[in-house]
Amino acid sequence: MYTNLTFFLDLAGTFAFAISGIRMASGKQIDWFGAYVMGLVTAIGGGTVRDLLLDVSPFWMHDEKYFLVTAVALLATLLFKEQVFKWGNTLFLFDTIGLGLFTIVGITKSIDAGLSFWVCIVMGTITGSVGGVIRDILLNEVPLLFRKDIYALACVAGGIVYFACRFLHMATGVTELMAALTVIVIRLIAVKFHIHLPQMRPERKLPEQDN
Amino acid sequence: MYTNLTFFLDLAGTFAFAISGIRMASGKQIDWFGAYVMGLVTAIGGGTVRDLLLDVSPFWMHDEKYFLVTAVALLATLLFKEQVFKWGNTLFLFDTIGLGLFTIVGITKSIDAGLSFWVCIVMGTITGSVGGVIRDILLNEVPLLFRKDIYALACVAGGIVYFACRFLHMATGVTELMAALTVIVIRLIAVKFHIHLPQMRPERKLPEQDN
Amino acid sequence: MYTNLTFFLDLAGTFAFAISGIRMASGKQIDWFGAYVMGLVTAIGGGTVRDLLLDVSPFWMHDEKYFLVTAVALLATLLFKEQVFKWGNTLFLFDTIGLGLFTIVGITKSIDAGLSFWVCIVMGTITGSVGGVIRDILLNEVPLLFRKDIYALACVAGGIVYFACRFLHMATGVTELMAALTVIVIRLIAVKFHIHLPQMRPERKLPEQDN
Repeated sequence: MYTNLTFFLDLAGTFAFAISGIRMASGKQIDWFGAYVMGLVTAIGGGTVRDLLLDVSPFWMHDEKYFLVTAVALLATLLFKEQVFKWGNTLFLFDTIGLGLFTIVGITKSIDAGLSFWVCIVMGTITGSVGGVIRDILLNEVPLLFRKDIYALACVAGGIVYFACRFLHMATGVTELMAALTVIVIRLIAVKFHIHLPQMRPERKLPEQDN
Repeated sequence: MYTNLTFFLDLAGTFAFAISGIRMASGKQIDWFGAYVMGLVTAIGGGTVRDLLLDVSPFWMHDEKYFLVTAVALLATLLFKEQVFKWGNTLFLFDTIGLGLFTIVGITKSIDAGLSFWVCIVMGTITGSVGGVIRDILLNEVPLLFRKDIYALACVAGGIVYFACRFLHMATGVTELMAALTVIVIRLIAVKFHIHLPQMRPERKLPEQDN
Repeated sequence: MYTNLTFFLDLAGTFAFAISGIRMASGKQIDWFGAYVMGLVTAIGGGTVRDLLLDVSPFWMHDEKYFLVTAVALLATLLFKEQVFKWGNTLFLFDTIGLGLFTIVGITKSIDAGLSFWVCIVMGTITGSVGGVIRDILLNEVPLLFRKDIYALACVAGGIVYFACRFLHMATGVTELMAALTVIVIRLIAVKFHIHLPQMRPERKLPEQDN
């Protein structure tokens, strides 16, 4: 039952991540294959970088579901374009749930690899956010992550809650749920109320600034 | 004899890939060293990413020929610029043969690593196409791969033919030749007849699209 | 004593690399978190790519100092912005010393991994220069490395001096010092006297060049 739920959330999160990549490819003179790749790197890029850093085999090599879900996401976009994007809120919810889930997966894999708690939090954040960064690099834009939206910071907060719960000897299931909810709630609140971090101000009076 | 041929094709393919990187660097305010790096990542980038994903030592660490061929490509470009680019068709042929060869190398290395057939096809495609993607990222452009030209798809088709031949118990040499020819012929036909995949259309009527 | 000096230089170099990333983020609509990430990848990106290629665990996983130094660099920039950038020359010196030190670290780690001398030089160069390349990719610019400044070439020269000294059976400490000084002196001279490599000239008379 619990496993079934995780399985479904993983699918839904992957679908939402893939749609976000495919959607951004639209209107950029990118062809269907390019859009598929864009959806794919958005969905699996973060976990792949994590697995490379952990020196384990990339997760998608042993499970074709991520490639299949991305194909479904591309088909859905091509066939029902207008409708798919009307699901904006549902997709955003899936995306946010995916973020929570992927962060927890990253943390637990890093704990299994015997890493310090702060490295586990970094790995959870990488799992949740690097796919979108690679997507933006491929689309030749400064990553959204760096510009707006409490995205990666929600992963960091979730990671801190995870280890706080662990420190208090809570059950694993509770710990994971609390951490995922932290990621999800922080992101929902941040987007709803337009909460941002301050931006770096440009330097003044230093014409020689461009190193 | 067979090995000698493979050796020569590997050199020719590497040379053509390197030239494509160096050539794109021209006119972008990039210096000689930058052009060398650009040629190098185009030639060895795909195989390096494949080897990182397979968790084996990057192939170029054990064979200086790739760095030397790239140096020759740079020298040739600096000394005989106009002429080198007049070889356009020859270079395109080498490039396409290289694509076929590199795809097969990627597939066989992945089979040796014990991966499923579809992961092997993905790895073959990565070997053939990721070098050009890294080149375009470094040059600050949306990768050509995503925009025009049946390039990566030719690798995928070659991979499918490879496993079809294998399924039919053909000899390894025949299988490899059939797969490489598939890559080469599809790419030649696609370029000759300007065959593209359709592009993603931009979204309409959804001003809030840029999430 | 020697170890303490290395420790200090490592901190100073990391600080200078991080500042260079954070500084470039300023005025690009990047928020504080994005600036932190930018400082971090500039400081640890080269060593991380080296460790992935060497198939060893990324160095920062076992030492929180790099994340802490980057946090200090961000704080310093936010609190004392104008002053920090007035330290231009000091930071440039730290940056250059860091370049020398990181190059040597990359070479020695590669020697320990049993690689050929030329691969060790490549790894030293990657350690010193790839962080800045990733920074520029994330900021959506053609990497500075490719455009101006004898930066990576100073690392290559330092690597050659390293193996020359080794060939002459000099003591390890002397070898490392000579190599680091080579990197530092070449970079200082190149910047002081505006020494560049020539740029690639654009192609002429070949309208079909953009393949």
